[in-house]
Order: sequence, then structure tokens, then C-alpha cells
Amino acid sequence: MSGDLGPRVAVPAVSSFAEQNPDTELLLIGDPSRIEPLLPAPKPARIRVVATDSVVEMTDKPSFALRKRKDSSMYRAVQLVAEGQADACISAGNTGALMAMGHYLLHMHPGIDRPAIATAIPTQTGHCYMLDLGANVDCSAEHLFQFALMGSALSEAVDQHGQPRVALLNVGEEEIKGSEQVKLASRLIREHSSLNYIGYIEGNDIYSGKADVVVCDGFVGNVALKSSEGLARFITRELLQSFNTGWYQRLVGLLARPLLERLKRQLDPSRRNGASLLGLQGIVVKSHGSANQECFGHAIAQARAEVIRDVPGLINEKLSRML
Amino acid sequence: MSGDLGPRVAVPAVSSFAEQNPDTELLLIGDPSRIEPLLPAPKPARIRVVATDSVVEMTDKPSFALRKRKDSSMYRAVQLVAEGQADACISAGNTGALMAMGHYLLHMHPGIDRPAIATAIPTQTGHCYMLDLGANVDCSAEHLFQFALMGSALSEAVDQHGQPRVALLNVGEEEIKGSEQVKLASRLIREHSSLNYIGYIEGNDIYSGKADVVVCDGFVGNVALKSSEGLARFITRELLQSFNTGWYQRLVGLLARPLLERLKRQLDPSRRNGASLLGLQGIVVKSHGSANQECFGHAIAQARAEVIRDVPGLINEKLSRML
Repeated sequence: MSGDLGPRVAVPAVSSFAEQNPDTELLLIGDPSRIEPLLPAPKPARIRVVATDSVVEMTDKPSFALRKRKDSSMYRAVQLVAEGQADACISAGNTGALMAMGHYLLHMHPGIDRPAIATAIPTQTGHCYMLDLGANVDCSAEHLFQFALMGSALSEAVDQHGQPRVALLNVGEEEIKGSEQVKLASRLIREHSSLNYIGYIEGNDIYSGKADVVVCDGFVGNVALKSSEGLARFITRELLQSFNTGWYQRLVGLLARPLLERLKRQLDPSRRNGASLLGLQGIVVKSHGSANQECFGHAIAQARAEVIRDVPGLINEKLSRML
Repeated sequence: MSGDLGPRVAVPAVSSFAEQNPDTELLLIGDPSRIEPLLPAPKPARIRVVATDSVVEMTDKPSFALRKRKDSSMYRAVQLVAEGQADACISAGNTGALMAMGHYLLHMHPGIDRPAIATAIPTQTGHCYMLDLGANVDCSAEHLFQFALMGSALSEAVDQHGQPRVALLNVGEEEIKGSEQVKLASRLIREHSSLNYIGYIEGNDIYSGKADVVVCDGFVGNVALKSSEGLARFITRELLQSFNTGWYQRLVGLLARPLLERLKRQLDPSRRNGASLLGLQGIVVKSHGSANQECFGHAIAQARAEVIRDVPGLINEKLSRML
């Protein structure tokens, strides 16, 4: 029901995903009068509508949403996971509320205080996981340490990395650099023998492939990711414009089009849509609020992949070994 | 004497700058035995070496550097500005120490507590100024408010913007988003009638041209800028590689080379080298530690431009009107 475009994006994405993934059953939680007209007729057997009465607004504070939106589509979706009636929940809605509901209904892994948003970022050598990306704007050193544990467990679980290289994002590589909580977090991570800590990295090294896990607070992670996305869009635009400044440029642009299209797809942030709320004892995937139908489909695919790999189970196992 | 490559970069950059700018006199502060062999023979008349005995190390804490490095090249360089013997100081050294020395020797504009590092960022419509970029890793709301004042004054002074649009970098555009100090800073900036405050922007809008001044704390600004630089390098590399995967791609790459070179130059972070330490009653420009000769030249050019425009004088004037 939420996100910038609501059911108009989510419902067609779900229909098309159901068609392409015959092993998947999809529940659409929300207002049937707005959902059902958007479904193909006859309604596919593997799509079910679960009626709810309200919607978490983007401006709702998480605490308010948790207390007053128990009849919302978001609350019900997370609850279905908690009750074992769904394997995963996907939402393009209010991140803070989703996190609060996940925390309340699904509970945390033992030893983890708060969920963190993690996603895979392309690097020169493959990808790394970056967390947190916006769930926690004020983090203590202990929280950053927990993100390191979760990120390392995720990388080990999903990518079968033996010893994922964990780095802490900072404003310099020297030990004296950074805020107090980053310096303290560095000590906590270093002292933990099961983590393969490689120290501080700066923003420019997120994409270099130096680290398998990049740890930062949610404010910094969100800004880093979004400013990179903004720059990618800026570059793509400049590149396309530069191929449009004269007949020679247009000709070269025509010849280069397949290459440019491939690059544009590779850089497209929507292809990475679907961030995991790590730390919860259940699968919750956050989609960009501005996701279009194709992007929303990526978030559903991310949730399905986590179900198949049992990511929460693997993280639980790794964490109990680490802690 | 400092930065990753020390005099090997700074001295040739200065020699070539002196040659191209006959209106400029350049003082090289440091160890003559390391500087003089790198100068062209005979030594150009407009280059003078000022001997000092020590160097601020990259690992020195600012407070230590200020107390114990009074005989350093950095201290002397800032002191020459304070004494009126130089119009501007350029350094590729320890940022924290440079800031502390600037604060101590040049003093702040009235109403400003701490220097902020600002630089022009290319946008779809021109450029914006972003600050702070790493001088202040822990900022209060009051500091962010002062950055807004300085950034607005800089934009007005340098770009003759009548009412520069000031934005606060945040993790969302809704009023409830963000850390406590960002929310408080938003109120302080909004209440100040001489600022044209447009509210929060997210990382992806830094490059869109929505704002003329983007305000953030030094940790966030540094990570945003460096992660964007890292992504630009990643994209350039992928682009060049994609033009090297077969004979057709190589042919198109050959034809597209002039366009790609132009784009690469435009994106090159080194062309933006030279960040201003705003808030000081004197001109101090910080170069990237990793700057090569060409980049270091850009930092000198930035300092020269600020001298010609009398940026500190203009900021003083705007601030006294604003406060």
C-alpha cells in the first residue's frame, strides 16, 4: 500500500513475479478495493489478497506506527512472517516503522540490539555488503560492532567467504582519525577474534573491492549510497549528452549504444533494489520508496533468495559461534 | 613538506605555476636541502624558500601539532599569512593540524566557532558548495547552522548568487527524518531570515542542482565526497574496459576516445583539488594528500582565485550583515 506509487507498482510486480516463479505464493496485504482491480483476470491461484484497514504513513514516527497502526498493511505483513504464515515480507513503506515492527514482532538474534539495513554494492572485484544504510541514524560503538558481526555472518552465509574482510568506514585510514564512536568500534571489532578486521577504509574504497563488509552508521551509509547513486545518474546523463553534441558524436553514440546500455544497466541502482533488514529472526526486505515495477520485482527476488538460502538461520548459526 | 609525495609534487607544481602566473610570488616552506634540488636552475626570482626544521606528521593529533610543531613548515606557512607576509597558504598535510593552526593563528570570523572545509561540486546545472568535508567529525546543530551561514556567504560572494539555496543533507526529506542535531540545525537555519533555506535533501540530490549550498557534518561530507569519487573511478574503469572486450568495441572505443577523455577530465576529482578552510580570517587551502603535480597546481590556483576575490573579506562582510 505504501511507497511513492503504492499498489500501482507493487501489484503488477507481484503478478509478473508469480508468473515467472511457479514455486512462489504471494500475499498482497492491504485494501482489496485498491488491489483487486490491478490484478489480472482471472486472479492467479498463487496470489492471495489479505485485507487490512490502514496504512503506515511516510511521516509516521516509528513509535506511533507501532502503537497505533496495528491494523495496517505493514504490521499485518510482518505479523504473517512472525506467525509462520509467510516466509518473507517486502515493503516499500516507512523504513523506521518497518524496523520497529520487525523488532517487535520477529525479535532480534540474541546479542543484536537493532536491525540494520544491508545491501550488496558492486565493486571492482565482485561485491561487498554495506551496513547500516539508514535504519539507525544514531549508533553507538557497540551497534557498529554488531553490524560487523552481522555483515560478516551474511557474507560468510551467502557468498561462502571463509573469512570475510570487515572494514570500518572512516574519514581517514590513520588510527587517530574519526569520531569517538568509530574509534571505539574499531577497538571492539579488532579485539573480536572471529572477525577478519582490516581496519578503516575511506569512501573511495567502498567500490575498490578491498573489503567484503563495510560497516558504518545509518546516516553515513545512507548518504554514501545515495550520493553515489546521484553521481552515477549525473555521469550517465553527461555521457549520453556528450554523444549528442554533433553528427560525429551522434554516429559514435549509435555505434556505442549496446555498450552504453550494458553499462547503464550495470550501474542502475534499481537492480540492487531490495535491502535486507539484518538481525531479525525473520526475512524482511525493504524496497526503495520510488521503485518502479521492475525494481520492485528485484526486491521480491531478493526476499525469495533469502528464503531459499535461509539467511536468518545461517546468521543465527554464525552469530552463536561468534558470540 | 607533507602529503603523500611531499616536495616531489609541491615543488614542480609551484615552479610551473610561477611560470604561468607572472603576477604571483611563491614561498616554499620547509627543508631547503629537500626543496632546492627540485627547483629549476637558475632558481626563478619569484620563488623563495623559507627554511623550517620539522614537519607535522599525518599521525600527529591536532592539539599535539599545535603545541609541539611550532617549528614546522605548516605552522610557519600559516604564520606567514597571519603576519601579512603571504596572502594565502596551501598545504597537502594533516587536515586537523592545519585547521587547528589556522584557528589559532588566523582567528575565526566573529560568530563562527570552527573552520569548515568547503569545495565546489559539479551539478547538472553548474556547481554547489558542500561543507563540511572532514574538518569537523562531531558537529553540533549550532555548527551546522554556522556552516549554512558560511556556505551561503561564499556562494553569494564568489558566484554573485542573490539568494543561494541552502539545503541540509539528511537521510530523507520528511521533517521527522534524521539525527537529533540535524533536526535541530534545520530549525536554526529555517528561523534565520537571511538564509534561503530549502530544507532537507538526500545524497542523490547533491549533484542534481537543487541546492547552491549543501550543509553536513564533516564525517558525512567526507564520506559522501570520497564515495562519489570512488564510484566515478569505478565507472570510468568499467567504461574503458567495456571498450576493450572485442574488435567492434575497440573500434568504437577508438572513435569515442575524444568524448571519453573529455568526460574523464570532467569527472576527475583532481580538477576540483583545493578545498577552502572557511571561517578563518585568512586564506588556507587544503590539497588532497595524494595530489599529483597537476592536482596540486589546481589547489594553488584556488588559493590565488580566493586572494583576487578577497573571499575572507567578502565572507566577513556577508556574515556581519547576517548575524
